[in-house]
Amino acid sequence: MKKIAIQGEQGSFHHAAALSWYGDAIELIPCFTFKDVFKALQISNADGAVVAIENSLHGSINEVYDLLLANNLPIIGEVTERIHQCLIGYSGTHLQDITAVYSHPVALSQCSDFLETKLPNADRRESHDTAGSVQYIKKKHNKHHAAIASKLAARLHGMTILQNDIQNRDTNYTRFLIIETAASTNGKANKASLVIETDHQPGALYKALGVLERQHVNMTKLQSRPIQGKLWRYMFYLDIEAQYPAVEAIVHDLHATGCKVTMLGHYPKATSDVHA
Amino acid sequence: MKKIAIQGEQGSFHHAAALSWYGDAIELIPCFTFKDVFKALQISNADGAVVAIENSLHGSINEVYDLLLANNLPIIGEVTERIHQCLIGYSGTHLQDITAVYSHPVALSQCSDFLETKLPNADRRESHDTAGSVQYIKKKHNKHHAAIASKLAARLHGMTILQNDIQNRDTNYTRFLIIETAASTNGKANKASLVIETDHQPGALYKALGVLERQHVNMTKLQSRPIQGKLWRYMFYLDIEAQYPAVEAIVHDLHATGCKVTMLGHYPKATSDVHA
Repeated sequence: MKKIAIQGEQGSFHHAAALSWYGDAIELIPCFTFKDVFKALQISNADGAVVAIENSLHGSINEVYDLLLANNLPIIGEVTERIHQCLIGYSGTHLQDITAVYSHPVALSQCSDFLETKLPNADRRESHDTAGSVQYIKKKHNKHHAAIASKLAARLHGMTILQNDIQNRDTNYTRFLIIETAASTNGKANKASLVIETDHQPGALYKALGVLERQHVNMTKLQSRPIQGKLWRYMFYLDIEAQYPAVEAIVHDLHATGCKVTMLGHYPKATSDVHA
Repeated sequence: MKKIAIQGEQGSFHHAAALSWYGDAIELIPCFTFKDVFKALQISNADGAVVAIENSLHGSINEVYDLLLANNLPIIGEVTERIHQCLIGYSGTHLQDITAVYSHPVALSQCSDFLETKLPNADRRESHDTAGSVQYIKKKHNKHHAAIASKLAARLHGMTILQNDIQNRDTNYTRFLIIETAASTNGKANKASLVIETDHQPGALYKALGVLERQHVNMTKLQSRPIQGKLWRYMFYLDIEAQYPAVEAIVHDLHATGCKVTMLGHYPKATSDVHA
């Protein structure tokens, strides 16, 4: 049985993403921080890891970008999960009886419209994890408390969904990366993630993007991050749609324009019926 | 006396940046969140605002990027502050007597080396503001407590600096933007911040950067953010070095490539002796 490290607890959206990629037959390694997730892989406490890289409303998770480069472990896949937030509590509790709602700050903010209109008088209490807050209200056994988390969290902890789909917007998706300790030689790889550090000349990024243009390659994401120790200078994380061997030609040509290039992974693009 | 809104309390790094730009003769409007800062300007509770936009180690503050576009208030200047973190407490307290250290989570993380080697047994306690944690330990009157904040916070609250410059790295700078309700017609403006939304074609960003290339304009920052309501599509925040009227030609040419362009401000670039 594969051991899969995630940030957060059983029943979190990371857990749901891990089940989507690996199926049900996994041993889950819940970790408190993203740094701990990568460490679990590095010291072979885990065979694989699932880390959120961006949310469609909130954008990139910068810490994970930095950890990808620092740890030099290959991305072998990606999964996109639609985020359905649920209000979870005790069976029989009515909305008007709820005095406090627990969840991760991002989940609380994603459900701010519901909280303001339906639970204007309930305290919002921040915790480090959505599913962990379900566990917490279960332990406290107070029928006036509720939590915001996934359907999976309600099921795993045997709690009741008081209201479904309470997030502000319907187009709320999170993209997760699958990281392992060795790249798989996957013939279906059609997406690559790489980091480029251009030379510090005006137009250097323009030149680098020219390489993609000439290879007719679509770029699906560009994310800048500061280069540590080089003040106000940035590296760029790129996601591109490219198969083998085009991806090798691109890396070669990027080098030729004076870029330092680090390949983070070449993997199959998530297939999903995701639409805006 | 100008009323200047900042995120955080008296003595915070935002306060220091406000003094750098406006001088001492200001009335400070401390706000709990960045959203509150922009609201203070919108409802004329403040004449100006100072908001952090990026830190040299941690990168962009995404929330502020989103608020700049949502509020459509002009950037009229920028200030760069070197971040010197200090351990602040009661006069006469020795490091070995300290049982708890209070500060903003980012400040605690910026001083992690110092905390691990010099205060391995002290609790780290998170608060919403560096200067606010100095105020808190002063109120609690416990000589075993300390806070991490700026020199200014120690001075304003009459507390003692137990150790100076405890941050992990020396190249720790934060760049702040100055926002007002009306753009000033400043002849010295040589930097522009703008947001572009390209058409959704492969190579659209490459084409847009080609405009800057042809105008021989240096781009100092490129930050992508999700477009709300358009799944996995991004807009780009650009900082460019350009004077009048070059900046008008650039906006014109960007429009011509099919970009939607929003100008956030044209202002004098921060002059400082900042080096990597």
